[in-house]
Amino acid sequence: MKYCSTCGHLVKQRIPEGDNRHRYVCVNCSTIHYQNPRIIAGTVPVWEGKILLCRRAIEPRYGYWTLPAGYMENSETTVEAAERETLEEALARVNIEGLYSIIDVPHINQVHMFYRATLKDGLFGAGEESLESCLFAVDEIPWDDISFPTVRKTLELFLEDLKSNSFDVHVRSIRHPMTKPRIKDDL
Amino acid sequence: MKYCSTCGHLVKQRIPEGDNRHRYVCVNCSTIHYQNPRIIAGTVPVWEGKILLCRRAIEPRYGYWTLPAGYMENSETTVEAAERETLEEALARVNIEGLYSIIDVPHINQVHMFYRATLKDGLFGAGEESLESCLFAVDEIPWDDISFPTVRKTLELFLEDLKSNSFDVHVRSIRHPMTKPRIKDDL
Repeated sequence: MKYCSTCGHLVKQRIPEGDNRHRYVCVNCSTIHYQNPRIIAGTVPVWEGKILLCRRAIEPRYGYWTLPAGYMENSETTVEAAERETLEEALARVNIEGLYSIIDVPHINQVHMFYRATLKDGLFGAGEESLESCLFAVDEIPWDDISFPTVRKTLELFLEDLKSNSFDVHVRSIRHPMTKPRIKDDL
Repeated sequence: MKYCSTCGHLVKQRIPEGDNRHRYVCVNCSTIHYQNPRIIAGTVPVWEGKILLCRRAIEPRYGYWTLPAGYMENSETTVEAAERETLEEALARVNIEGLYSIIDVPHINQVHMFYRATLKDGLFGAGEESLESCLFAVDEIPWDDISFPTVRKTLELFLEDLKSNSFDVHVRSIRHPMTKPRIKDDL
């Protein structure tokens, strides 16, 4: 951020009065521009005991398998965001069964939320951001080609919970391993 | 948003290629400025069977009672945000017991998350944004003077769950009652 989105003048980083963090503040109109984490919402879509994954048609992680998920938009709920992303990426309509995982990813200012879901009718396909979608049995998950740590962690938890058929909400955080250079890939 | 925060030129609302929503897009450098919901993180702090509330020293809802909560910051987890807000507003250090409520508030682009917590040492006070803090027994909650619907809903759920001493995670959404004019007060 270099310029004020309100008046177009330059911004500078400083700690506003009564605050204790550096913010972008406009040198002209004094507007404080706060920056906050974003929510990624998605589902673990299940159909006849199998899990629906999408193979990404976009970077980062082009070609890798992911649970359908994406940025929550203004004016929607987390459930609506999860349903919408599942429809957009996997062309699948789902019934939401319950919140499943909330994973903080503080080094990239994101919170990932996955809901358990079942396909309404067994139909799915490849949305614009997917190369393909596929149902995987629990022993078929392509572990070597999973897109992101939050997807891997959610799948690991889900497969473990499947054994007891008991699905509590899991809260986790995944921090960037500082020794690895590939920030994008470690999302 | 009127100006591009990257180059300072004007932005216009249009639907970018491959998108289906209006975004602010710079007429000069074509940067797309996405806007997304923010997370409010807080706690339900308990000490010896009583619940700690803070009376707000800031608008909106100056003078009303609230659970300690505030905007999640970049580079922190939801748990860290909830702990920090409890320390800042109630001067109380807490042990987080578990996620408790997630309440979508789509008309103001917020998601409120409350964690159950217990005070570490029974100490509390009034931070800069609070007039006072006070422990309330379950039959002393000041229902007529609660700050926000998400706080009221979380307290209602919590008191109900206290009866069985069983605290599942609750996912809810609160939509703005369209007939009421006071948007700020209905947060």
